Amino acid sequence: MFDFHIETGSVTTPKGFLAGAVASGLKAQGLDLALVYSMIPAQAAAIFTVNKVQAAPVILSRNHVANGQARAVIINAGCANACTGDQGMADAQETAAITAKVLGVAPQEILVASTGVIGRPLQMDKLRRAIPEVNRQLSPQGGEEAARAIMTTDTVAKHFSVTFALAGVEVHIGAMAKGSGMINPNMATMLCAITTDAAISAAGLDSALRTAVNQTLNRLTVDGEMSTNDTVFILANGAAGNPRIESEGAPLQQFTAALTQICLALTRAIAADGEGASKLFIVEVTGARDEEQAHQAAKAIANSALVKTAIFGRDPNWGRVVQAAGACGVEMDANRMSVDFAGMAVVRKGQPVPFDAEAMRTALSAKEVQAQMDLAVGAATTRVYSCDLTYDYIKINADYTT
Amino acid sequence: MFDFHIETGSVTTPKGFLAGAVASGLKAQGLDLALVYSMIPAQAAAIFTVNKVQAAPVILSRNHVANGQARAVIINAGCANACTGDQGMADAQETAAITAKVLGVAPQEILVASTGVIGRPLQMDKLRRAIPEVNRQLSPQGGEEAARAIMTTDTVAKHFSVTFALAGVEVHIGAMAKGSGMINPNMATMLCAITTDAAISAAGLDSALRTAVNQTLNRLTVDGEMSTNDTVFILANGAAGNPRIESEGAPLQQFTAALTQICLALTRAIAADGEGASKLFIVEVTGARDEEQAHQAAKAIANSALVKTAIFGRDPNWGRVVQAAGACGVEMDANRMSVDFAGMAVVRKGQPVPFDAEAMRTALSAKEVQAQMDLAVGAATTRVYSCDLTYDYIKINADYTT
Repeated sequence: MFDFHIETGSVTTPKGFLAGAVASGLKAQGLDLALVYSMIPAQAAAIFTVNKVQAAPVILSRNHVANGQARAVIINAGCANACTGDQGMADAQETAAITAKVLGVAPQEILVASTGVIGRPLQMDKLRRAIPEVNRQLSPQGGEEAARAIMTTDTVAKHFSVTFALAGVEVHIGAMAKGSGMINPNMATMLCAITTDAAISAAGLDSALRTAVNQTLNRLTVDGEMSTNDTVFILANGAAGNPRIESEGAPLQQFTAALTQICLALTRAIAADGEGASKLFIVEVTGARDEEQAHQAAKAIANSALVKTAIFGRDPNWGRVVQAAGACGVEMDANRMSVDFAGMAVVRKGQPVPFDAEAMRTALSAKEVQAQMDLAVGAATTRVYSCDLTYDYIKINADYTT
Repeated sequence: MFDFHIETGSVTTPKGFLAGAVASGLKAQGLDLALVYSMIPAQAAAIFTVNKVQAAPVILSRNHVANGQARAVIINAGCANACTGDQGMADAQETAAITAKVLGVAPQEILVASTGVIGRPLQMDKLRRAIPEVNRQLSPQGGEEAARAIMTTDTVAKHFSVTFALAGVEVHIGAMAKGSGMINPNMATMLCAITTDAAISAAGLDSALRTAVNQTLNRLTVDGEMSTNDTVFILANGAAGNPRIESEGAPLQQFTAALTQICLALTRAIAADGEGASKLFIVEVTGARDEEQAHQAAKAIANSALVKTAIFGRDPNWGRVVQAAGACGVEMDANRMSVDFAGMAVVRKGQPVPFDAEAMRTALSAKEVQAQMDLAVGAATTRVYSCDLTYDYIKINADYTT
């Protein structure tokens, strides 16, 4: 319906946004503190982790974004500020207060996010020094550095932009995200900050964000783990000067489609950069009883350690796809199901189909591998984005806190 | 209440049972076909996988065991005979028919189990030659070889026995199991065959087996994967001559306790020999709303790739335990929860507790590591048995079919 060209811009591609990054010392080396700032008041919306244990910045930001307004997002890597008790909440509040002071806005206009090790206190002495510094770094070209500053075990910075016309006016969306482990649908996410210069109502923005994330970032799974800190923020400052997008109608549909495309680009980039990943693994489930069951089956296949190691090892062991789907509890017809593995038919109507194992090994060598399964009990479909499980996942995670 | 001494006997420790094993060629090398035979008619009970996709031998054996009687169990490694369509069912039937013929019993008295690669046909030419051979190998000392013959990626054969007195009569239980990958509670199991010379009613035997497995093998998880083939069989031939155990009363309690102990020994052995495992990992959850939620949380912690890699890497990253429990959807009070990791307090009433990271690294070096979490919302408790996630899990599973 809509076709958008996704480019490698950033959160400073939209008009009226500045960003900056510094090395605060929370990480042993490199940039670890990012600030994104709207020069004019902005509408804001957010989606947070549904983990029962929520980090202090998640609790604080949910409160701050409740009125649909924000001016800035401050994100630190190196420490999740999760399971840090009362001190953790005080630290998140102080982070917002210092940021508000240097920007000359109210603390309630600051959204805070943290990523890193759980259970360790935030080193506030470092942040007290670094927040005024990152404020001095703010610039209209700062988006890429900000995207680098929020990385933890990521190997590449993830930032995209899209430009399109709304009622003849050019508008932009820019985004950055981090996350390559502890990633699972429903808040799949990790940390993600999105900016747009589109003028849009608070209700329209919230609706667009939920629709886009549900189709993309919530269909991402690296390791079946859901973080205490996952957050997606979006700020819309209206600097483009388009007629305001309301909570329904064609402009909202177009904006939502563009936002979905940029979130899909982030989703694919995060999956492909999953901890230790050597390839992107996409699972498509069809013929499910309902959307929830489709999602459950696709997630079970994508999260299966046995399927993921087979993808890594280019092992034509498609039986693991069937085993994972069968074990997850969704309705399926074992006598009518169909399975494709790496683009080749392996099961039709419940019966195994002969295939060329060598050709499958070659297909499994691609940078992107797909598995399709038809459960043969309904019409619901879904697609999830994941990666393989490799030696490097073990290496990265067996010794992360040190 | 009861105290039993578990010994390293086997399925031929109970009177009246013979076992044998041969190399049929289904595996590239080594023993791969085991036969366990009761010289007199036996009561039988079984528990099967709840995977929606069930292997042909599972469907066949469920049917054969339905009348509570059996004479023999035949188990092959090297091929799961799962997802093999109509041919797979014909092959399972033929396996039972040949075995029945060589033993001189009815096909309905034969229980069949298979383990190995999914989706490949059983090579019946090899089994047609090997079944008469394994019949010739039957002996009262054959239990250990049978335990070796059912191994796939296992590194050690798993077989135990227990001897105790029932109303002054000495009775025995013997057991063997295989399985180190694709293992997850509710039919955790893999393949397990248990024999006893106790005289027991069909209802008593079924009740004892369900109670024992629920407390042990169903609390086992290596990788969160549930197989299409998981099966536990028990045969009771009454050769000990004890007064028959009925479906309630003290003798049944004693028998159930002994059976639970032997199943616990198998559970610990399978977890410690999990694919690539370097240590046994036991998760205890307390303070859950109900038993199901306790189990769900414990399983989420035990199956978390991040927790498992931390255990492997001796990484004091206890926050991953909290994250895994919080993500799994069970009720918990984040402000009152407590966590112990490797025997050291790390969270009390929702607040992090300082601990000695070096001492924890040392504790994490043990061959058995525990994590405890109190959810602080109820009184239900559970315990699950698992292992760490290592480079060798990837190595074993990235190239299994070849």
